[in-house]
Amino acid sequence: MSGDDGGCERADEGVPGEEADGLEGEPCEGWPVSLAGVTESLVATRGPNGLWNVAALGLFAGEAVTARTWGNTRTQRNFHREGEGYVQFTRDPVAFADAALSIVEEAEPVIDATDAWARVRAERAGSGTDGGTRWVEWTLVPVEAAIERETVAPINRGFGAVIEATVAASRLDVPGYDETVLVDRLAHCVSVVDRTGGPRELEALSRVRRHSTWEPAAADEYDWL
Amino acid sequence: MSGDDGGCERADEGVPGEEADGLEGEPCEGWPVSLAGVTESLVATRGPNGLWNVAALGLFAGEAVTARTWGNTRTQRNFHREGEGYVQFTRDPVAFADAALSIVEEAEPVIDATDAWARVRAERAGSGTDGGTRWVEWTLVPVEAAIERETVAPINRGFGAVIEATVAASRLDVPGYDETVLVDRLAHCVSVVDRTGGPRELEALSRVRRHSTWEPAAADEYDWL
Repeated sequence: MSGDDGGCERADEGVPGEEADGLEGEPCEGWPVSLAGVTESLVATRGPNGLWNVAALGLFAGEAVTARTWGNTRTQRNFHREGEGYVQFTRDPVAFADAALSIVEEAEPVIDATDAWARVRAERAGSGTDGGTRWVEWTLVPVEAAIERETVAPINRGFGAVIEATVAASRLDVPGYDETVLVDRLAHCVSVVDRTGGPRELEALSRVRRHSTWEPAAADEYDWL
Repeated sequence: MSGDDGGCERADEGVPGEEADGLEGEPCEGWPVSLAGVTESLVATRGPNGLWNVAALGLFAGEAVTARTWGNTRTQRNFHREGEGYVQFTRDPVAFADAALSIVEEAEPVIDATDAWARVRAERAGSGTDGGTRWVEWTLVPVEAAIERETVAPINRGFGAVIEATVAASRLDVPGYDETVLVDRLAHCVSVVDRTGGPRELEALSRVRRHSTWEPAAADEYDWL
């Protein structure tokens, strides 16, 4: 643990020019992984139908780990009603794209693609409005956690491009974002995945297209899309 | 192993719309990790001074794993003279940026940040010229391999942005690339790292700046850069 408060590293705690203490941060208290900056996770929350809704959730490291839900989403309603959920870490770009851009409902909370998870208590910490969208901030307190699978995760630019494409596609219909900029960014992601992605990245990007309003201008050049 | 030839998955072997066999590919024969598409690795090659030069190297999965060296680089010369090197997989963005954009020389071939490595025989497989730059293609045949460390690697958009920034910065002085496009891309990377990166990503991006000719227009907004 890096501090007395069990906190995790925030982006603004970095001291450029000085070496960090180690190559990897310490795991944050109660979490199965080290968190720094914003970590893109999945969260399963139980819906009124008894099924677990799996959605994307950005975790903000800090003295406490927090996350924001934007608008009247299933995650927001389920956190509000149930007060908990299962935060999950995966390296599968298909699972990420599906959760981020479509409705995924499962009988069990922890999905197969998950490498590590934490059951968290979700405590409402605040709310506000940004660009016309109401957000709620939650403090996430882990109460149980497990590691399912550890690997060596090689760097693949296509993987990063799928994540960026997912983010861009999710903003296509959100007021306040410039659609031309987002479409340009998506085209760049297509080009990176096309040149560097593996089969899971190609599949994930085809899901991004299927789950969103994105119409790639040059789709006929990419028969996998 | 997915085929009789011990080959790894190529990007064009993906079949969108069908589930892949598993969430993770099989490790390629002799390699310590599964390779698909293009994997960004580091490679240590022994120089005439007896030190190990550590540089970035993109690995192309396929029936055989191949890589290209561009121009008269240390890696190209050392592969040519020694016929071997240590391919290394790391999740440390600082080690990646340093190796990709500066001269790193070490007494030992395997660096601390490495999660897994393979000693490879480098066999010249072809050469050509692209945009005025002479390239050599190498077939990399692993002869020894080890896993140093397995982890759960959470998704951080800042990590991906550092890799993209490194690629863009390395092309700034290369004829045939549009500098305006590259500088725009770098600005976007700065914004993603600033919002989502942890301390290692902030440090890595400051190394990208230090090691390249990139002059961020709004550097005064980012005192960590």
